[in-house]
Amino acid sequence: MTQTSVPDVVIRRLTTYLQTLKHMAQRGEHVASSTEIGRWAGVSPAQVRKDLSHFGEFGRQGLGYEIGFLCTQIERILKIDQDWRLILVGAGALGHALMNYGAFVTGRFQIVAVFDSDPAKVNTRVGQREILPMERLAEIIAERHVEIAILAVPATAAQHVADQLVACGVRSILSYAPITLNTPRDVHVRYIDPVASLQTMTYYL
Amino acid sequence: MTQTSVPDVVIRRLTTYLQTLKHMAQRGEHVASSTEIGRWAGVSPAQVRKDLSHFGEFGRQGLGYEIGFLCTQIERILKIDQDWRLILVGAGALGHALMNYGAFVTGRFQIVAVFDSDPAKVNTRVGQREILPMERLAEIIAERHVEIAILAVPATAAQHVADQLVACGVRSILSYAPITLNTPRDVHVRYIDPVASLQTMTYYL
Repeated sequence: MTQTSVPDVVIRRLTTYLQTLKHMAQRGEHVASSTEIGRWAGVSPAQVRKDLSHFGEFGRQGLGYEIGFLCTQIERILKIDQDWRLILVGAGALGHALMNYGAFVTGRFQIVAVFDSDPAKVNTRVGQREILPMERLAEIIAERHVEIAILAVPATAAQHVADQLVACGVRSILSYAPITLNTPRDVHVRYIDPVASLQTMTYYL
Repeated sequence: MTQTSVPDVVIRRLTTYLQTLKHMAQRGEHVASSTEIGRWAGVSPAQVRKDLSHFGEFGRQGLGYEIGFLCTQIERILKIDQDWRLILVGAGALGHALMNYGAFVTGRFQIVAVFDSDPAKVNTRVGQREILPMERLAEIIAERHVEIAILAVPATAAQHVADQLVACGVRSILSYAPITLNTPRDVHVRYIDPVASLQTMTYYL
């Protein structure tokens, strides 16, 4: 099966499986069954096996999955066993919080440049980075081979900035703006929306 | 079937179905099939029907679901057809961004108080709210009948603050701290983690 035929929801579930496996490893476990993985991820054991079978044969019938091995394999499949350069657009309060977020300083995802359209912010610093004007977006994206951007701009500016990012070659956008972006089919967008998360919890109250 | 027997993953999927339905309504559609809903949410039509059947009979065989009606029903099930009071702990850059987030000012989820442990921040303002000391946590939670908290504190403080929140009666926590919290079984925690979202996109690059 070619990579492009794997449904997006399977890719999303792989990250959940990875988290589950890492939790189990932290608890000192070495082997995981599809039942255990599925229970945590909220899917059936058959679904876990089917999802993983898109990418190869990782376990043995009746013996389960070796946790360390499966973690390594999933990280390789998701390409998170390598470093990625990101840019951040929007240097407001959220942008500052993101620049100070440990994972973006020392982790595999590194924010290499920050942009803002506000002339008063340009040339000031956020974290260790100087804020660049939007005019330099194309140049930096090309120079640093950036394919991923974080969008931390107001809702009213988000679509316009997304269009610019796409035109410059960005193919993955993580958006904090509470609107749905229109992007070409080959551009992947994920949204971070606290309200959507809160809406999954009130049921229990 | 009692409410408590519904798996958490079904509750999460309901919010995805709701988003799907709202998108369809925006496009001017009035009726949705389980196939259409499922395609967007990445599950089978049978799964959509099974998930909804936990709560009642919302569609007619062969006719699909009336979108406006189903939206109203899902909002009622998720209890997001009512207002909720939240508190925010952590008045750093992220806390400021959250206080300025439109949905928390005018939406169904209203941040009614902000807390910080830093004496230098206490009594200053963030958005329209005065920052309160942690010592007032129990009093405000009881007085305002708050059951939901947003955690925007550093990873090192997150577990300690979560323990305080739970002790004060908070039963839902939305955490921005990049650690897994230990909480009692009846406390629901959701995590907002930009790295987890980014990890679902690099596969396509």
